[in-house]
Amino acid sequence: MRIIPLGTSSGKPTLNRNVSATAVVGEGEWWLFDCGEATQIQIARAGLSPHKLVGIFITHLHGDHFNGLPGLLSTMALDKRERELIIVGPPGIRDYLDLLGRLRILFINYSLRVRELSPEYFTDRLQELVYESAKYTVVTRPLDHRIFALGYRIEEKMKPGRFDVDKARELGIPVGPLYSKLQSGEEITLVDGRVIHPLQVLGPPRPGKSVSYCLDTRPCENAVVLARDVDWLIYEATYTREFIEEARQYGHSTAAQAAMTARESNARHLLITHFSSRYPDAWPLLEEARNIFPETTMAEDLMEIDV
Amino acid sequence: MRIIPLGTSSGKPTLNRNVSATAVVGEGEWWLFDCGEATQIQIARAGLSPHKLVGIFITHLHGDHFNGLPGLLSTMALDKRERELIIVGPPGIRDYLDLLGRLRILFINYSLRVRELSPEYFTDRLQELVYESAKYTVVTRPLDHRIFALGYRIEEKMKPGRFDVDKARELGIPVGPLYSKLQSGEEITLVDGRVIHPLQVLGPPRPGKSVSYCLDTRPCENAVVLARDVDWLIYEATYTREFIEEARQYGHSTAAQAAMTARESNARHLLITHFSSRYPDAWPLLEEARNIFPETTMAEDLMEIDV
Repeated sequence: MRIIPLGTSSGKPTLNRNVSATAVVGEGEWWLFDCGEATQIQIARAGLSPHKLVGIFITHLHGDHFNGLPGLLSTMALDKRERELIIVGPPGIRDYLDLLGRLRILFINYSLRVRELSPEYFTDRLQELVYESAKYTVVTRPLDHRIFALGYRIEEKMKPGRFDVDKARELGIPVGPLYSKLQSGEEITLVDGRVIHPLQVLGPPRPGKSVSYCLDTRPCENAVVLARDVDWLIYEATYTREFIEEARQYGHSTAAQAAMTARESNARHLLITHFSSRYPDAWPLLEEARNIFPETTMAEDLMEIDV
Repeated sequence: MRIIPLGTSSGKPTLNRNVSATAVVGEGEWWLFDCGEATQIQIARAGLSPHKLVGIFITHLHGDHFNGLPGLLSTMALDKRERELIIVGPPGIRDYLDLLGRLRILFINYSLRVRELSPEYFTDRLQELVYESAKYTVVTRPLDHRIFALGYRIEEKMKPGRFDVDKARELGIPVGPLYSKLQSGEEITLVDGRVIHPLQVLGPPRPGKSVSYCLDTRPCENAVVLARDVDWLIYEATYTREFIEEARQYGHSTAAQAAMTARESNARHLLITHFSSRYPDAWPLLEEARNIFPETTMAEDLMEIDV
């Protein structure tokens, strides 16, 4: 998997940083987390194919996380998209798309599945599985912003253990289709009647890679849970620590709080983003986070991170 | 006055051309015609101050002319705009802004005056004055697109004739406040009792500069009227002439039709824009227009034209 930040500024774009959007790229499919204005341009600059985009996951309905949606959806219609697209986010998205359709601002000619999750939905459950394909899952939990916001975690499914070719030879299994059967978890019977169980030739199952996306939010338990043992935690660092009161008031986190969340959740790496435009230079934010969590990277628009 | 195209691509942005928006800049105020996605970024790149933006004139509600509105309005709120802003366009803008406000996608904390003009409004009038300041006016007329669309003309008011200092000296008018009175059109009485009329020291009134903005549209009478004797006609040239049928079907014009409109209206200059992304290179469009109307310029994002 790869992470490509498409916009790393909070509130409004600067000449170097667009507003919030992050691509996470898997095998044959990719996902977009938030969709601020001009995200479709950033997607083109990053060289990503909109045809392989399968899901858009919106954290909350502030414009700087959301205003790029109609442009991206329209362009995919102009480009004759055929694949179904899912959009997940807080309530309001459907009303918004309906009005845009009625006003003829937006035309969509492919299948669009909108899944809205309200605060009430989480009164009797902790998290929700909102996407599943053969290889990947996405779950969501509410975060703690000044309006309802969702955090996400995308995970590659457990991969089968590595196939031990030497062991297979020792057992006298003929090279060919029986190998694939064992690899996919099936027992086989050899011509001499011996039954071979997959575990005899497969190593231990390997955990898939994982990425969490938590913005906008104050530090909260659900962000820690979403980021538990994750390979990369993408987390907002809107302010430096001297603005902790402002962060609390507006429902944001400081760089230090981002780092503490990464440490508490045992994340392997932290990617900080969503920088206030008061920082023309985001290095103070990186320094503050690294003092607490050394494995911190500062997001730049269009950088690429190998998960 | 200056013209700064902010987006010159039709339908969707390319890596070199953003979607529709054009700034026309006057003295102490400027106006935005259309507001496609990422217009606020183009405004920043052009070095224009959003505080001096006084009016946004929307031609029609297709997303590529309109999707940048919420981002620009929000950023002006974040930047503590105080000046009133007017928005003129087809019906639907108020509903759209209301829904965005209710969903909390958009916050506006300055005075916003929305003026919607419907097709019905023009059943018993030909054009409407939609903006007037001390020095400028903007009028609008319906065009002929596949949905309701408006064209605009911005005009500097007539300027008083030049003050003839030699003549004033000859007449024995003392240098000072009497000069300003004459310049502003007042009669004065000298100490010796002589009455001086402004016309004795002023040359003939000078016509102001003018710019017309006509997209998206098929060739039509109202575009010709809006562009009558104009200094610069900004007009769409979505296609080359071999796609004239497609242009008609989708409510657009070819480059040749743009040029014929300029010629018929006796415009001094033509600025073609709104190029289909099928033309990675817009030179064929320019060539086609120049063969008919030599004073044609091809718009490029962020170029500056002195009116």
